[in-house]
Amino acid sequence: MDIKALLAQVKSGELDMDTAEQQLKNLPYEDLGYAKIDHHRKLRSGFPEVIFCSGKSMEHLVGIYKSFYDRDDDVLGTRASQAQYEAVAQVVPCVEYDPLSKVLKIHRHPLEQVGLISVCTGGTSDIAVAEEVAQVAEYFGSKVNRVYDVGVAGIHRLFAKLDAIEAANCIVAIAGMEGALAGVLAGLVSKPVIAVPTSIGYGASFGGLSALLTMLNSCAEGVSVVNIDNGFGAGYIATQINKLASK
Amino acid sequence: MDIKALLAQVKSGELDMDTAEQQLKNLPYEDLGYAKIDHHRKLRSGFPEVIFCSGKSMEHLVGIYKSFYDRDDDVLGTRASQAQYEAVAQVVPCVEYDPLSKVLKIHRHPLEQVGLISVCTGGTSDIAVAEEVAQVAEYFGSKVNRVYDVGVAGIHRLFAKLDAIEAANCIVAIAGMEGALAGVLAGLVSKPVIAVPTSIGYGASFGGLSALLTMLNSCAEGVSVVNIDNGFGAGYIATQINKLASK
Amino acid sequence: MDIKALLAQVKSGELDMDTAEQQLKNLPYEDLGYAKIDHHRKLRSGFPEVIFCSGKSMEHLVGIYKSFYDRDDDVLGTRASQAQYEAVAQVVPCVEYDPLSKVLKIHRHPLEQVGLISVCTGGTSDIAVAEEVAQVAEYFGSKVNRVYDVGVAGIHRLFAKLDAIEAANCIVAIAGMEGALAGVLAGLVSKPVIAVPTSIGYGASFGGLSALLTMLNSCAEGVSVVNIDNGFGAGYIATQINKLASK
Amino acid sequence: MDIKALLAQVKSGELDMDTAEQQLKNLPYEDLGYAKIDHHRKLRSGFPEVIFCSGKSMEHLVGIYKSFYDRDDDVLGTRASQAQYEAVAQVVPCVEYDPLSKVLKIHRHPLEQVGLISVCTGGTSDIAVAEEVAQVAEYFGSKVNRVYDVGVAGIHRLFAKLDAIEAANCIVAIAGMEGALAGVLAGLVSKPVIAVPTSIGYGASFGGLSALLTMLNSCAEGVSVVNIDNGFGAGYIATQINKLASK
Amino acid sequence: MDIKALLAQVKSGELDMDTAEQQLKNLPYEDLGYAKIDHHRKLRSGFPEVIFCSGKSMEHLVGIYKSFYDRDDDVLGTRASQAQYEAVAQVVPCVEYDPLSKVLKIHRHPLEQVGLISVCTGGTSDIAVAEEVAQVAEYFGSKVNRVYDVGVAGIHRLFAKLDAIEAANCIVAIAGMEGALAGVLAGLVSKPVIAVPTSIGYGASFGGLSALLTMLNSCAEGVSVVNIDNGFGAGYIATQINKLASK
Amino acid sequence: MDIKALLAQVKSGELDMDTAEQQLKNLPYEDLGYAKIDHHRKLRSGFPEVIFCSGKSMEHLVGIYKSFYDRDDDVLGTRASQAQYEAVAQVVPCVEYDPLSKVLKIHRHPLEQVGLISVCTGGTSDIAVAEEVAQVAEYFGSKVNRVYDVGVAGIHRLFAKLDAIEAANCIVAIAGMEGALAGVLAGLVSKPVIAVPTSIGYGASFGGLSALLTMLNSCAEGVSVVNIDNGFGAGYIATQINKLASK
Amino acid sequence: MDIKALLAQVKSGELDMDTAEQQLKNLPYEDLGYAKIDHHRKLRSGFPEVIFCSGKSMEHLVGIYKSFYDRDDDVLGTRASQAQYEAVAQVVPCVEYDPLSKVLKIHRHPLEQVGLISVCTGGTSDIAVAEEVAQVAEYFGSKVNRVYDVGVAGIHRLFAKLDAIEAANCIVAIAGMEGALAGVLAGLVSKPVIAVPTSIGYGASFGGLSALLTMLNSCAEGVSVVNIDNGFGAGYIATQINKLASK
Amino acid sequence: MDIKALLAQVKSGELDMDTAEQQLKNLPYEDLGYAKIDHHRKLRSGFPEVIFCSGKSMEHLVGIYKSFYDRDDDVLGTRASQAQYEAVAQVVPCVEYDPLSKVLKIHRHPLEQVGLISVCTGGTSDIAVAEEVAQVAEYFGSKVNRVYDVGVAGIHRLFAKLDAIEAANCIVAIAGMEGALAGVLAGLVSKPVIAVPTSIGYGASFGGLSALLTMLNSCAEGVSVVNIDNGFGAGYIATQINKLASK
Repeated sequence: MDIKALLAQVKSGELDMDTAEQQLKNLPYEDLGYAKIDHHRKLRSGFPEVIFCSGKSMEHLVGIYKSFYDRDDDVLGTRASQAQYEAVAQVVPCVEYDPLSKVLKIHRHPLEQVGLISVCTGGTSDIAVAEEVAQVAEYFGSKVNRVYDVGVAGIHRLFAKLDAIEAANCIVAIAGMEGALAGVLAGLVSKPVIAVPTSIGYGASFGGLSALLTMLNSCAEGVSVVNIDNGFGAGYIATQINKLASK
Repeated sequence: MDIKALLAQVKSGELDMDTAEQQLKNLPYEDLGYAKIDHHRKLRSGFPEVIFCSGKSMEHLVGIYKSFYDRDDDVLGTRASQAQYEAVAQVVPCVEYDPLSKVLKIHRHPLEQVGLISVCTGGTSDIAVAEEVAQVAEYFGSKVNRVYDVGVAGIHRLFAKLDAIEAANCIVAIAGMEGALAGVLAGLVSKPVIAVPTSIGYGASFGGLSALLTMLNSCAEGVSVVNIDNGFGAGYIATQINKLASK
Repeated sequence: MDIKALLAQVKSGELDMDTAEQQLKNLPYEDLGYAKIDHHRKLRSGFPEVIFCSGKSMEHLVGIYKSFYDRDDDVLGTRASQAQYEAVAQVVPCVEYDPLSKVLKIHRHPLEQVGLISVCTGGTSDIAVAEEVAQVAEYFGSKVNRVYDVGVAGIHRLFAKLDAIEAANCIVAIAGMEGALAGVLAGLVSKPVIAVPTSIGYGASFGGLSALLTMLNSCAEGVSVVNIDNGFGAGYIATQINKLASK
Repeated sequence: MDIKALLAQVKSGELDMDTAEQQLKNLPYEDLGYAKIDHHRKLRSGFPEVIFCSGKSMEHLVGIYKSFYDRDDDVLGTRASQAQYEAVAQVVPCVEYDPLSKVLKIHRHPLEQVGLISVCTGGTSDIAVAEEVAQVAEYFGSKVNRVYDVGVAGIHRLFAKLDAIEAANCIVAIAGMEGALAGVLAGLVSKPVIAVPTSIGYGASFGGLSALLTMLNSCAEGVSVVNIDNGFGAGYIATQINKLASK
Repeated sequence: MDIKALLAQVKSGELDMDTAEQQLKNLPYEDLGYAKIDHHRKLRSGFPEVIFCSGKSMEHLVGIYKSFYDRDDDVLGTRASQAQYEAVAQVVPCVEYDPLSKVLKIHRHPLEQVGLISVCTGGTSDIAVAEEVAQVAEYFGSKVNRVYDVGVAGIHRLFAKLDAIEAANCIVAIAGMEGALAGVLAGLVSKPVIAVPTSIGYGASFGGLSALLTMLNSCAEGVSVVNIDNGFGAGYIATQINKLASK
Repeated sequence: MDIKALLAQVKSGELDMDTAEQQLKNLPYEDLGYAKIDHHRKLRSGFPEVIFCSGKSMEHLVGIYKSFYDRDDDVLGTRASQAQYEAVAQVVPCVEYDPLSKVLKIHRHPLEQVGLISVCTGGTSDIAVAEEVAQVAEYFGSKVNRVYDVGVAGIHRLFAKLDAIEAANCIVAIAGMEGALAGVLAGLVSKPVIAVPTSIGYGASFGGLSALLTMLNSCAEGVSVVNIDNGFGAGYIATQINKLASK
Repeated sequence: MDIKALLAQVKSGELDMDTAEQQLKNLPYEDLGYAKIDHHRKLRSGFPEVIFCSGKSMEHLVGIYKSFYDRDDDVLGTRASQAQYEAVAQVVPCVEYDPLSKVLKIHRHPLEQVGLISVCTGGTSDIAVAEEVAQVAEYFGSKVNRVYDVGVAGIHRLFAKLDAIEAANCIVAIAGMEGALAGVLAGLVSKPVIAVPTSIGYGASFGGLSALLTMLNSCAEGVSVVNIDNGFGAGYIATQINKLASK
Repeated sequence: MDIKALLAQVKSGELDMDTAEQQLKNLPYEDLGYAKIDHHRKLRSGFPEVIFCSGKSMEHLVGIYKSFYDRDDDVLGTRASQAQYEAVAQVVPCVEYDPLSKVLKIHRHPLEQVGLISVCTGGTSDIAVAEEVAQVAEYFGSKVNRVYDVGVAGIHRLFAKLDAIEAANCIVAIAGMEGALAGVLAGLVSKPVIAVPTSIGYGASFGGLSALLTMLNSCAEGVSVVNIDNGFGAGYIATQINKLASK
């Protein structure tokens, strides 16, 4: 909203004061009662809206997707279940679902993909999170290089892929258990590393706490960390960085 | 119990000493063996009795509701399951159940609703807890203003509702994940804010611990906190405050 | 700031558009560079500004107090050290310091004290926190009833004071170690109880964590909790409640 | 085993040296391979053997019960499931099961019950643990006084039962959530209090951690604590104390 | 206080009603303002009053000791510093201090010592806590058998002392680091074991948490646990048990 | 890979530079895309490849086993479910599965078993983890002595087996709850003890944390610890030690 | 190191095989025995070497700075004490020290400063960490915009600075206590936000844990997090991003 | 003690029964009252006695060292302070102290050093712990190869030393902060790796917890872990392994 333009309208009488006051108070979003959908977010941040599906009721979720669909807007949902997909698909036929990454999206206006992000995992069990990273990054307009199962327990696998990894503008390092991949990668490359701890593991991994602490305590420079299993968050900030670098 | 009146009766001989001693020891409640129901609590605190349903056996729970029903007393139960509702409904036909808030109540003598409490959530996933707050507050005699999905990630949604929120005597701020809503609200309004952390989230939210710590460490003045997901507790103390302000 | 009045001024030409835009963006505070002092806070919240002294450099702290002093405003600082007091006193001669509560204040315009708050402690070691509660509440305009050393280990001491405690509009319960005072009090009175866990204790009290968890899990209704040792926060919200009840 | 008697037999030639060495090494127990059953434990400790059923395979559990049954020994198992009961009952027809306390026992030689133990709970949800306490204590030869639902949130219920509680040699205080019952009781009576935190609660009760810490930090003298939900342990040590007092 | 006798006095007119009401409300203690000293506690519990010295101000502590001294009552303080001793000694010349156990006491009327308590430590570093146990037990009238440095790392040292240990009515097992002593002892003896975890250790002992958890999870029957380093609590409950057994 | 030999080939012209560069970068493994199988690991470490089955998709897991099967290589998988076994068995008919230890293996080229490892458990509930230890050790070429249910609560059972335990080159001590077995064993034997905490227990065992801390804080020398329930890790390092001792 | 060039030299005979093997193994660093200084790091990562001063002995630290000084290389040390500065200054006269940020540097070859990073703090107590961020970023070649004391408790202060904050390529948000600044900022701007939790706070802030969890659980997109008080790490990755955006 | 020989003596009359019983009960150690010194430990375990000096009183510590000195036995103490060294040196002139490792020893009968242990650190700040490892290993008869400052942040430093590291029978990996060194090393070598987390770090390293969890969750096979900063424990078990391999 352009405050100055609005004030000009008030001065000129184009806009009455009550309406202006209202507009100053109510920035534009659609109020569904149970949810307030931010259709102008795309203008503000340059990215389409995103929905955290987990825990939302069927009625609420379907209503939200329908609102986007009706305006011909795209939307990407994370942590969607198969059942949620099926419910949404009944009213939004074009919705797409990937059961591995649990991404549920309306994607009729794909963005051009630019730059490059390397998405690396320590093991094969981390691939579900990695696919959330990769698909979010692709949705928001990044090219992605997937490099899976290159954990530090067999470090020669990592070295074999190092040139390809470093070719990106930003690297996402995804690992559970000990979570050492992020720090080792950051010591080998000169690009920012976004670290994603995963909840893969057992016992003293404490649901991903071990990998989280490892990544936060990385001795190598150039690492910052998102929440455990937060593939979406990593894909988003990696795209922000990739786009800054691709201007 | 009025100790002085009792002593007067002893002195006058109206009351024999053994009975007096007994009454001094046994304040009035109904002993079901497995439970001690406090029918005089309403006199003492001004609020009807409340039941924490979760974990109680069917037999015990039905017995407790029947005891209130038989005396034509109202009672509100929290965290009741659908199965508990169905069992109670067989012997107490007038019992009401809301599956979202999990409130199970006998409500034949509604209190007049006074004052105003604003019940705000950060997201749509927090609504189940918020409804427990709102329905408890309404049951105990407060008017309630529901303001849902106004979390700090899109802070213009909050500003648009600020005047309506602050019109209340007490504000309940309900949020999971980072839990920043309570502190931001308290910085914007001049009314006491009761903060309810929720267990919505994943990974390093640690079942609501993250939101709990955020709220306890709020830099803004005028915040105090109840247990994670404790909608009942927030609705109760908010009503105490609202009634003090509405006298 | 009254948005409507401002818009009226714009319309009438009293205010040019650039100035109006500026005012809409910059709410009034004084920018010292290292700190942004909110002299209008009093208008907004009804309470004077408060300073968290711990960890601030001498230069910054003295500068802040001087700013208030120069405008003849009152200010209350918490967690101030003896050394901080002495440094401030050199440029602000009227500053007052209490070494027990660590309150450091300029207090030339005392508010009228209304209503009543009961400030209760479990033991004598909790008195330092209790005095922070009491002095903050008095500074902001509450009458205070101090009831110290009435912990549940010798519960007859608590019963002897119960009538005096309940005479208040709001009760602050301060306890370390097991922290049971808040829950027991809330079961006995009908006023809201603000619970303050303290770090008094050793071993499995884990710096106040034990008392904090006890208070958050209180079975009695009408308890909400502030941070460990946060006497200021309790005194503030108790005063908000007390003033609502004293209107 | 009487070492001196054994040595005398060696000296006299009654016992050959190899056998003696074997006996010195192998104190008497029955080795089932997967389990080593201690049939002489009763002699050593004065109490029959006890089995922790949870997590044991059907084959192992049935084998263990059969071993006791075949020797006409009694045995008490804790945390047994309905399925485990049914499997054991097929080969040990006289086995008895209580689904509330989850106690599974062969009880053909009941001990005489002496003295008195008071078993108190804060709420009705704590009764499952309380019954484990009570039935273990009775099995090992204690009289038991059950006093349920006397938590501190309605402290007059506790006072009404105080004389009956204190008549025992040892008091077991069982509570979840805030867990304040143990400390309040210990402040009111002069008998040792064994505190049992329960996992009843939610949110910041952290599976019983809150009640555990409360009880460990009790300000009142005369409290010691067993593991969360450990009704067996409390029933056992309470009986040890009760028997010492009943000599 | 004998309620029945009081009621009889009211009936007969010996006692006026206002006085009776007052007595029913105010059980006898001395109110120093900052502390409420319980001079009748000895009658109620059979044990003299105890003071937790740590964290009390000099003025308060000296006042409390003087109050006992003036009434010719004994008192035992725990966790007293050398400085506190010196301050108290100036006004209470007969006060005694042991710098190892940090016990500070007025002890002019020693109780007769009965029965026996065994006080065992895992290592020599646990002796400070053990002496608090032993001296508290002796002060309250128990005979004590000290058995130090018999930890499980060299288990033959423990076996050599086993007969002497088991001769007691109650055993106190004190250990830091892994804290296994309590469980091993309980498996070898048939008397109740009060376990005291100590903060001796480093790294993953986390200030005694490791030993605390070990003791709470003891597989052997007959163990209950007090707070980390809580020698006083262990000495107190061990004496309660010892006296019950010595009747 | 022999770098010097490769360089010699480059110099002599046997190997062209591009190929050499490639080989220096790509150490030999098979890239399945989702997994990078290290068929040369056996040469490097002397042990065949191992697969962590838990959390892998059926498609990935079957593909990995098929890859080994097709090359006639052995492979051992841990934490495999019954369903995973059935899926793999459809394409790899010779695969073997043990539902107790959850080991899933192709084992056509058994290694000769040398030396001796003692695998000891505190209780019968720890046997599942113990069997993972034992079967991994046997698979990698160690003889194994199983000694189950010798926990410290009945320490005479342990002493009866001590000579047999100490006959090994390395001892694995497996225990849940208090976890004291490792420390007690290390105090009695002179061989290295690998400690495995298990998640057996409840309440304050916190999923094995209690046993883990106990073992890390062991006062006896010669203990080191692996992750909670990590039978594989213990079997592996015990075999490394056993083989060093058996050379 | 260019592997292909090296191989060419081997082939041509310019380089003998032993030397080549050595170079492949020993990448260039200077071995001081106690430390291995990486003088070629600048080539590899584009950034000069950095030293973590805290905990290093005087002798080691002085030796390391002298090594850089002697080669006329720049170096930046973090968390240096005043005493360390004085010791280094005796042999490296040109070393510069800032006692607020604790940065100790040799800075004879300043890099050109490009782009822009906004460094924001919640309070004035966070300025020490913020200065580490800012000075590290400036040292590595970024322009910096300092925006201090704009925490969410008085959110109008933040809005007044929003345009200036968003003008940067990357934003660093530094806050203790509740730590909500990062999430609120990320909801308002479209640039990546690097969040730095600080240890400012008390009680349930648990040394910065509260702020750390808040930031990890941020609901707004575009936040990633470094270790508590890790100003250096934030300054480094922010500069990586800023330089990518400034190309 | 040879039980069979003892029994033979009893049978033959060489040994009377009382003495035999005594010997069976009292394995040989010297009882100083406050400590029980195990002079025969060397026979049992093959290693001399070790003393944990931290927390012992001067009087006790000096007495213990004197006891060894008087018998001409060697002894090694860990975590000794400078003051403890000076006190012991006054009565035991030959005692040796290293202020870096804090080892205090009587070392008149050095053992022959055999085999090889590699002691590796991630950084220079870990050297104090590493020296405790190395000096303990040397004292007990191992050759040691020190490889310091080879952390994974600059992994080429590690590769340059890999051949030398792997030449040992056992590798000790010492690291703080993220603690990734142990897992990376174990992936590269085929020898058992004993991991020592250190308390070096700040913030979310939580006193070494981060490194501890990383090491426990190592994905590479062949890692086991000792307590945080427990250089002694690592040196001891590494020597046990080294000696088994050197037979």
